[in-house]
This record gives sequence, structure tokens and C-alpha cells, in this order.
Amino acid sequence: MKIIHILFLFTFFSFTISQAFVNDFCVADLKAPNTNPGYPCKPLASVTSDDFVFHGLVAGKTNNTFKLGATLASVTNFPTLNGLGISAMRVDIDEGGSAPMHTHPDATEFIILVQGEFTAGFITPTSVYSKVLKPGDLFVVPQGMLHFALNSGKGVATAYVFFSSENPTIHLLDFLLFGNKLPSNLVSQTTLIDVDQVKKLKAHFGGSG
Amino acid sequence: MKIIHILFLFTFFSFTISQAFVNDFCVADLKAPNTNPGYPCKPLASVTSDDFVFHGLVAGKTNNTFKLGATLASVTNFPTLNGLGISAMRVDIDEGGSAPMHTHPDATEFIILVQGEFTAGFITPTSVYSKVLKPGDLFVVPQGMLHFALNSGKGVATAYVFFSSENPTIHLLDFLLFGNKLPSNLVSQTTLIDVDQVKKLKAHFGGSG
Amino acid sequence: MKIIHILFLFTFFSFTISQAFVNDFCVADLKAPNTNPGYPCKPLASVTSDDFVFHGLVAGKTNNTFKLGATLASVTNFPTLNGLGISAMRVDIDEGGSAPMHTHPDATEFIILVQGEFTAGFITPTSVYSKVLKPGDLFVVPQGMLHFALNSGKGVATAYVFFSSENPTIHLLDFLLFGNKLPSNLVSQTTLIDVDQVKKLKAHFGGSG
Amino acid sequence: MKIIHILFLFTFFSFTISQAFVNDFCVADLKAPNTNPGYPCKPLASVTSDDFVFHGLVAGKTNNTFKLGATLASVTNFPTLNGLGISAMRVDIDEGGSAPMHTHPDATEFIILVQGEFTAGFITPTSVYSKVLKPGDLFVVPQGMLHFALNSGKGVATAYVFFSSENPTIHLLDFLLFGNKLPSNLVSQTTLIDVDQVKKLKAHFGGSG
Amino acid sequence: MKIIHILFLFTFFSFTISQAFVNDFCVADLKAPNTNPGYPCKPLASVTSDDFVFHGLVAGKTNNTFKLGATLASVTNFPTLNGLGISAMRVDIDEGGSAPMHTHPDATEFIILVQGEFTAGFITPTSVYSKVLKPGDLFVVPQGMLHFALNSGKGVATAYVFFSSENPTIHLLDFLLFGNKLPSNLVSQTTLIDVDQVKKLKAHFGGSG
Amino acid sequence: MKIIHILFLFTFFSFTISQAFVNDFCVADLKAPNTNPGYPCKPLASVTSDDFVFHGLVAGKTNNTFKLGATLASVTNFPTLNGLGISAMRVDIDEGGSAPMHTHPDATEFIILVQGEFTAGFITPTSVYSKVLKPGDLFVVPQGMLHFALNSGKGVATAYVFFSSENPTIHLLDFLLFGNKLPSNLVSQTTLIDVDQVKKLKAHFGGSG
Repeated sequence: MKIIHILFLFTFFSFTISQAFVNDFCVADLKAPNTNPGYPCKPLASVTSDDFVFHGLVAGKTNNTFKLGATLASVTNFPTLNGLGISAMRVDIDEGGSAPMHTHPDATEFIILVQGEFTAGFITPTSVYSKVLKPGDLFVVPQGMLHFALNSGKGVATAYVFFSSENPTIHLLDFLLFGNKLPSNLVSQTTLIDVDQVKKLKAHFGGSG
Repeated sequence: MKIIHILFLFTFFSFTISQAFVNDFCVADLKAPNTNPGYPCKPLASVTSDDFVFHGLVAGKTNNTFKLGATLASVTNFPTLNGLGISAMRVDIDEGGSAPMHTHPDATEFIILVQGEFTAGFITPTSVYSKVLKPGDLFVVPQGMLHFALNSGKGVATAYVFFSSENPTIHLLDFLLFGNKLPSNLVSQTTLIDVDQVKKLKAHFGGSG
Repeated sequence: MKIIHILFLFTFFSFTISQAFVNDFCVADLKAPNTNPGYPCKPLASVTSDDFVFHGLVAGKTNNTFKLGATLASVTNFPTLNGLGISAMRVDIDEGGSAPMHTHPDATEFIILVQGEFTAGFITPTSVYSKVLKPGDLFVVPQGMLHFALNSGKGVATAYVFFSSENPTIHLLDFLLFGNKLPSNLVSQTTLIDVDQVKKLKAHFGGSG
Repeated sequence: MKIIHILFLFTFFSFTISQAFVNDFCVADLKAPNTNPGYPCKPLASVTSDDFVFHGLVAGKTNNTFKLGATLASVTNFPTLNGLGISAMRVDIDEGGSAPMHTHPDATEFIILVQGEFTAGFITPTSVYSKVLKPGDLFVVPQGMLHFALNSGKGVATAYVFFSSENPTIHLLDFLLFGNKLPSNLVSQTTLIDVDQVKKLKAHFGGSG
Repeated sequence: MKIIHILFLFTFFSFTISQAFVNDFCVADLKAPNTNPGYPCKPLASVTSDDFVFHGLVAGKTNNTFKLGATLASVTNFPTLNGLGISAMRVDIDEGGSAPMHTHPDATEFIILVQGEFTAGFITPTSVYSKVLKPGDLFVVPQGMLHFALNSGKGVATAYVFFSSENPTIHLLDFLLFGNKLPSNLVSQTTLIDVDQVKKLKAHFGGSG
Repeated sequence: MKIIHILFLFTFFSFTISQAFVNDFCVADLKAPNTNPGYPCKPLASVTSDDFVFHGLVAGKTNNTFKLGATLASVTNFPTLNGLGISAMRVDIDEGGSAPMHTHPDATEFIILVQGEFTAGFITPTSVYSKVLKPGDLFVVPQGMLHFALNSGKGVATAYVFFSSENPTIHLLDFLLFGNKLPSNLVSQTTLIDVDQVKKLKAHFGGSG
């Protein structure tokens, strides 16, 4: 009897289940080919609560030159972000370490410091905008700006970062300039950095030429 | 001879037919997987005039609790709407009936009343915006607003509704709150509706817990 | 006592009224200068239910060459449409009349015929897409397409039209080609219409040259 | 001499300072009238590093019915977010408390739990998607979905929330349904909640009628 | 040893190569089905420098009625433009020739004259905007406007044209009006061009009816 | 008599002149405050044909360190580009000169070489994409990529560049890294460039610290 009543209710939207209720999100089917606006959608029937949670935003290893650990939750490992234009990263920097100069060509970065102290900044043609951050402070880096962060305090510093893109790219300046096979003379000519310095950094970052 | 002349004309756009003229619309190929911005395009050669017309926007059945009939023309049954960001619905409400509280999370709704009388309204955190509509009147419900309509006149009332989305979703509040398997205590705690009332409505709308 | 309780409730969003609840719509302040994305918003405090209703979508006069009446509800007379990307028009065509060839450079058109019979169509470089419409039928004209409609039945035919723009522009081909001051020779050279025909139509549509 | 050299360098972009370098961000001038895409830009010359940092994302007070504290950093108190499509909130819920059912009509919500335990979920017409979150876990609520959170653990639970809008609106269901002046009969008719229950909750949430 | 150092450097972005660096562009895979926002992406591993250059923007043949040559570089022959919203065309017009009246429904046109003299113009319902262009001059035609160009000087005139679309469509008015199978009476009725003139031009442009 | 006829014609769009025909473009009123989507519109009545042409895209001076001349036509000197998402630049490089490493954070760059020879390239985290360009060749640099160009031929080389933004910004790497007041130690720490080299280049580019 209850069933019948419910069916009555539903009759005013006979199209409901199959048509009108299927487009509230689009969890990526990562096996399908990527497109400009992201991945095709996984069928709704195979979406579960687990698709909406991500457990892996843990501290990355910091035993490297910059004493920097970074872990990213983007569409490629958290497919639910597909089409939502948002992703997250956890950044840990040991005392004395830094996040070296880099850009995100396709995302604004929104930082919240949760432990320690950061000195974060970005550079425009006319100014440097830089601040010392304490736990709870927010800092914004507009899309495409060259920016950096230092652990300027004691002990490890930890931040959560949110990006205005589900698939942000990370362009580390050193890898761009010195990790390639462009002739050192060309790099020197187009940066005015001495060619010896270019060659030294090319050796450091795996470039050649 | 005429043919040759035409070919001459066309030679200044040798790429024309194959390249430059194929992208004026994108009728959905509904068998292909859906993506965030919609479906892939059906080949142009298989598009005909019939793709641009829809005959099924007829009165829906109203023999249900709310005395409400609704028929939707969206991308899933009118594939030409793919990418156009627009769809249509016909709504019929019998005397004394209503369209219960609901939202469209991804579309603005644009109503034109063509018969009878509606009292239509939506609710924001600071106000209720509500009007009595007569035939020929337009009413706007911005995207995501909780809204309702009553047949406040005599006889059946009929409206055409246009949405600013080719695939609008319809979130009926009662089905969200009471058609699910969430524990009644949880629903009660997060709405302050008495748990007995929650249980009664869960029974009515097919929920459990 | 009740008041105090309510205040308690509200304290968890102390910013609520002033900050978080003000952006659900943006009714145009038409006295402010227009901008690319539309008009600045009228203050929320002066918005009322009347802003969301439009009573003027009535039949236009048809005592003209094309036997065509048209009435538009767009942002300039229905300011609530500001930013919503939607507008509406009522079209009445007397028996034997037509809507002459025209384009909407910035809007898709969505027609619902409510009375009489239309033959509606649009033209692309490779095809004509045209259908006879009966009451209740929908027809779509993609953005920028050259299109027309005939009253192909008995008596007056009436349609409601929705546009995917809050401020659609209407480019009637005859007014573009013949209502201007370009030299008739230039119009003839760039259309291959005989210059005598151009001059005749220029006289008809108020052009010169 | 150095100065002259620099001027030489700059001569290849004589327009540089005044023209080409001024549009990397648009800090809101909150005294100007709001528009659909946000506020006009504050002059670049008055922008400083302080514009890019926000210190006020502190714990809100939780001595209320829901034991909920919420603090928002959006364009209206952090004007640099203007046009960036991103904002942040800190949410604290005491043991046994909750964030009641609500929607954000214009923003996706991205939660990172930093302390305690949340049970977070949202409801669609076909499913409930709900998970228990531990510190470090991310959870996503797509735009416009009805959602809730419970402190399901011991002690206070704290989360940072990011929104895909610089000015998200918060629609608490109880305030929409029961904080207004709509007749209780109308609310009851369009929700099927008993009219006595409606009246009781209207008293609780400051509504009338 | 150097290798190890580099690996150390890279360890702070263990996800780097596979995840974070793959989305800077989306060269079209033209064999995949088209979609509204363009083609799926070719795999990054198969993208080379050759994908970013186009050699074929050469002068088109002008031995036709309008003495017009046109060569287009759009996504269909330069797949790297996929998703970039930009394309280019080379236009050559012999002395006395013209680009006949046409529209681009989905692109703004940006002309730079590099040789000879153009008289370029577009028509709105209220005005004609027309200028004589000399080498180095820029001219803008907003999206969807009916426009034309004449070689108003001596010898051939050459321009480069950029479009704000990667796949612009070209709607030549004569082919729309007279290259179809619509009855000549209908074309005459909806343009007020004499039916004899319509028939003559239909013969010229390959139409019938 | 003719006048009356025309008035008849116009009566079917009584709103025409004042309402429906005013939004085809939005020439910037540069005296009004800038906003995120650009400037407010100049009144239509003051727009003339001169607004659509730009005569100043001439060769810039090349007597500087990089032997580079650049002239930009963007919304700030060609206000008609407002809202059109397009701008142009002329680049001249003397023999042996270069366009040094730089990014455009908000625009794709589309180059057409018209004289001489360029070696143009851009760098991603995984590759360098670089080509030698001859007159007539097109080259694309996606938004935000670090890129450069060399005059690799004889004599001056000249290119026209189109941007997918009406107000592109130009971030020259040397001015960002060395034209500022950041401590040289910080620049060295976040780039691994030797501090002596940083100080030398800071002296060259007008920085301090």
C-alpha cells in the first residue's frame, strides 16, 4: 500500500530517476581519454560515498635539497574533483627549507598555515607582495604569479593549499630553466645569467647542452 | 557551365565544406559517455530538421498527492539542446494542488503562466519573494533557491518553464529529507523537526531508518 | 525569551545578515553605466517581490508590412534578468505574415508555439533546417543562425520565445542591408544583388546611397 | 650610469608600467557598487602586501543550539578574493553538535578536517553520500546539494572549508522554511510537514504566520 | 652521484611526472569524436615541437567571382589550437575584388592589413562602421556582425585575420540565401527581394526552388 | 509617404532602437574604474567608425640590451577590445637580439612571422617545444608558459602577435627575479643561483637587497 502511494507521488515526474537527477556531479572515468574540460563521467550507478572522500593528504618526505614535502589531491588521484575546479595540497617544509620559485599557470593558490611559520610571497613586474604567516593565517597567490615560501620559523611548518583548478600544473623555475636540453648559451642569452652559472645549474638539475 | 561557375566561387574557400562549416551546433550522441560539458556531437551528416523540433511537451498526469503534472524537454530526450544551456518544462497543477518546495541546483527558472492562476515564490535567508501570477505573467527563480508554486485559482493552471541549463536537476525537498535511509535521529538533529514527524514522513516518502 | 533563543541560534553566523546572504541575485540598477557582464546591482534592501514578476508580455501590434507583432522582456525593462542569461519574447503573426530573415548574434532562440501554425527554419552553409510547428511544439535556433518564420496556418499564430541572453540583439537582414547609407554599388558588389534592386529596397527600408 | 642602462632596457616596453602590468589581480573596492562579477578594482598603487593576507580565520563561538561556530573569509572581509572564485571558512563543532541541513546555491564545498571527527554527508534525489572523517581527510560537497555534518567523536571537531566562490551564500534549511512570514498552512502544504510542527518551528526560528 | 642528487630533488614531488605536469595544453586527437568544447587530447608523449607550428598560411587562389583568396588555420588543420580559442586566416583580394557580406556566428574577427588597401566595415541595426585600412592598421569586427571588405587600392591587398575561436564558422550571406532549396517565394517573402532576383541568384549560387 | 511606410515597418519592434540593438559591443570608457571583466561601456551614441581601427601598431625602438622593439595594442590604448578577449603586438628584433624569457599569466600567444627568422620556444616541466620560423609561419605559446624568441637569421625579424586577452600582462623573468628589493640571499635560496650572480643581475636590472 505504501509502495503504491509512493508510486503515485512519483508519477508527476515519470522521467525523474532516469533523466532529471543524474547530473549533479561527474566523477571522472580516468580510463577514458582526457579532454579540455576534464574526463568523461563514471556511470552514476557505480558512484559511492567513497568517491567523495580522500584519505591520502599526508605529510610528504622532506629529505631533499629544499627540505620540502608536498602531497597533492587533484583529479588524477581524487576523480570526484572532475569539473569542480578545485584541488588541495599539503606542504611541509623543515626548518631552514623552502618552496623554490615556481608558477601555477592555470590556478590561483590559497594557503592556510596550520603549524610553524612561513614567509610567503609573489612577484609582479611592479612589486613584491610578501608576508610572514602564523598558524591560521590565509595567503593568496593569483594565477600565474612567480612565488616562493620559506620556513622562517622553528621546527617544521605545515600548510594546506587549495587551488582554483582540479588539475593544477606546477612549474618549478629551476627545472624549466636548467632541467632541459636547450644550449646553455641560449639560456644565458635570454636570461643574462652567466653561462658558467647556467652550466653549473644544468648539471644540478639534470639538464644538458 | 553553371556548375563550373559555382565551383569557381567555391575555390576561394577550398576548405569550406569539410572544415569551416561544421560547428554551428552539436546535437548530442546520447550513446556516447556523458562529460561535464555535455555529450559528444552526432555527425553532422546525420542531423536533420527533425532534430530541432520537440513534440512531446504535453500535459503530465496529475492524479497524485500534489495534483501536479510535469513534463520536461531536456538534453536527454531532446538531444539538440546539448551545449545550448537551455531546456523547457510544462507544468499543470489541478485546483488545490501545488509544486512542493524544491531547488534546481544548476539552473535559473523562468516561468510563463498560460492558464489559470499560480502563487509562486522563493525563499532567501532574508526574505520571501512571492507573487500571484495571471496568464501572460513571467516569474523568475534564481538558481539554487528553495521555491514553490500553488494553484491559487479555479480549475487547472498551466505554465511553461524555461531553465538556463540543458540538463536541470530537480531536488524535491521531501524526497531529499524523507526518501533516504539516514537515521531519523540524524534527520531530526540536523533539522530540529521532531523525530516522530520525521518517521511519519519517511514512511510517506519511501525512506527508512 | 524567544528572541534570546533566536539570537543564540544566529550567533554561530555573526556575519550572516551583512555578508553571506547578499549575493543570490543582482537586480540591475539601470541608472548606472552598463558593463560587459551587465549592470551593477540595485541594493538588496530595495528589492521586492515585484522585481521578480513581469506583466507586460502582451500581444504586439501587427498592422505592418510583415503582419508581425513582437514584445520583448529583457534586462532593460525587466531588470531582474541582469546576469541570469535569459529573456523572453511574445511573437504574434497574422495570417499570411512572417518574421523576416534575421539573426541574434549573441543568443540561442527557443520557441514554443501556443496558437496557430508556424513554419520556422534556419539556414547554415550546408543545409536548411525547417519544420511546421503546431501548438505545444518546441523549435530551436542556435546562436547567430539566419532564420525566419511564416504563419503557415489559419488565423493568428502566437509563440513564446526564450533567449539564452538577458539582452539579446535582433539583426533584421533587410535593415542591415538596406537601411544604411552605404553606396548601393558597394552593397551590390558584396551581395551580387542587382543595384536597381538594392536601390528599390533602400528606398523601402529608409537607406540612402 | 646604471639608471641609464635600466632605462635602455625598459625602452623596448615604453608602455610597460602604465599599461601592460596592471591586471594581475583586482582587489575589491568595497565602497563601489557591487556587480554580477564582483566589485571594481582598488587602484594598484594602494595595494600592499597586507591585502593578500587574512588573520581572522579563528574559532567562532559555539554556545548556541547547534554547538556550532563558523567564521568566513570571503570577498566582503578579504577583498583580494574579488574575482578569484575562492573563499575559506573555519568550522568548529562541540561534542554532540552539528552543522544543520543547508545548501550553498553557488559554490562547491571542499572540507579538510584538522581535529576530532566529523560525519559529513549530502543528499541527492537518488542517494545519500556520507562518510566519517578523521584529521587530514578531505570531503567534497558539489554545488547546491543539501548537506550536513555531525561531530561524531569526542571533544571539539575543527575543519577548514574552501568554497569555489569568492562570495558563497549559506542557505540554512530551517531559516528558509521556518524563519519567514509565509502562512504555516502554505509551508505545510508544500512540505507535508504537519502544520503544528511548522508552527512550533516557526516560533523557534523567528518566523510568523 | 649527480643522478642521486636529482632524484632527491624530485622526491618532494613524487607525483610530478605522471600527474601534475600533464595539462598545460590539449593537442586535439582529431580521430576522436568532436564535443562541444572541442576534441579529446592527444597523449602528451606523442606531442612534439612540430605540433606548435603551422606552415600552410599561404596565399589562396583568387581566380573566382570575388577575386578572393582565403586560407584558414583552425583546429581542424592545426590541432594544437584545440581549447585555446584562437585561429588565423590569410586573406588576399585582387584589385577590384571583395570579401562578400558574411558573418562569423561564434567569433570576433581581428584584422591586420599587411599589404595594399582595404575598405572594411560591419553593419548594426543603427549604424555602419567602416574604415579604409593601410598596411599595419588593425580593424575589429565583433562576433556575429554582418561585414564585408573591398580591395579599394591598387594591386593585391593582403591581410592576416585572427579569430577568437579555434573553429570559427563562415556564413556567406549569398550562400545562405541563394544556395539552398527553399522555395524562391519564401525567400522573397522573408527578405522582400523580388522573386525574379531571388531566382537569378539561386541559379548563380547553386540553389533550387 | 516613405517615412510612414518605414514607421509601419518599425512598429512591430517598438522597443527596437532604444532597447534591443544596443549591446553588440562595449567600447571601454577608460575614465571609469576598471573591473574584473573590464571597463564599463562608452555610450553607443559616441561610438564611431574610428573606434574600430588602430593605426599605431608600428615598429618599436630596438636600441636596448636585447635589441628588441615591442608595441602593444590592448584595451588601454584600443578601448574597443574591451570584453572581446583579444589584443595584438608587433615585435621587431634586430639581428642577434632576442625576446628574453617571460610569461603571460593570462593569455595564449599566437605568433605570425612576417619578416626574417625567429627561433621561438617554450618550456614545460617535461619538454622544450621550439621551432625555427620563416615568414608566414604560425607558432603557439599556451597561457602561462615560460618562453623566448631569438632572431636566428639575417637582418631584422618582425612578427605580429595575437593574445587571447584584451589586457595581457607581460612578466619578464629577469625583472621579476632581479628588479625587486627581496634580499639576494632569499632569491639565491629559492633559485639556487649563486648569490654573487644574483647581486650582479640585481645591479643590472635595478633591484636592491
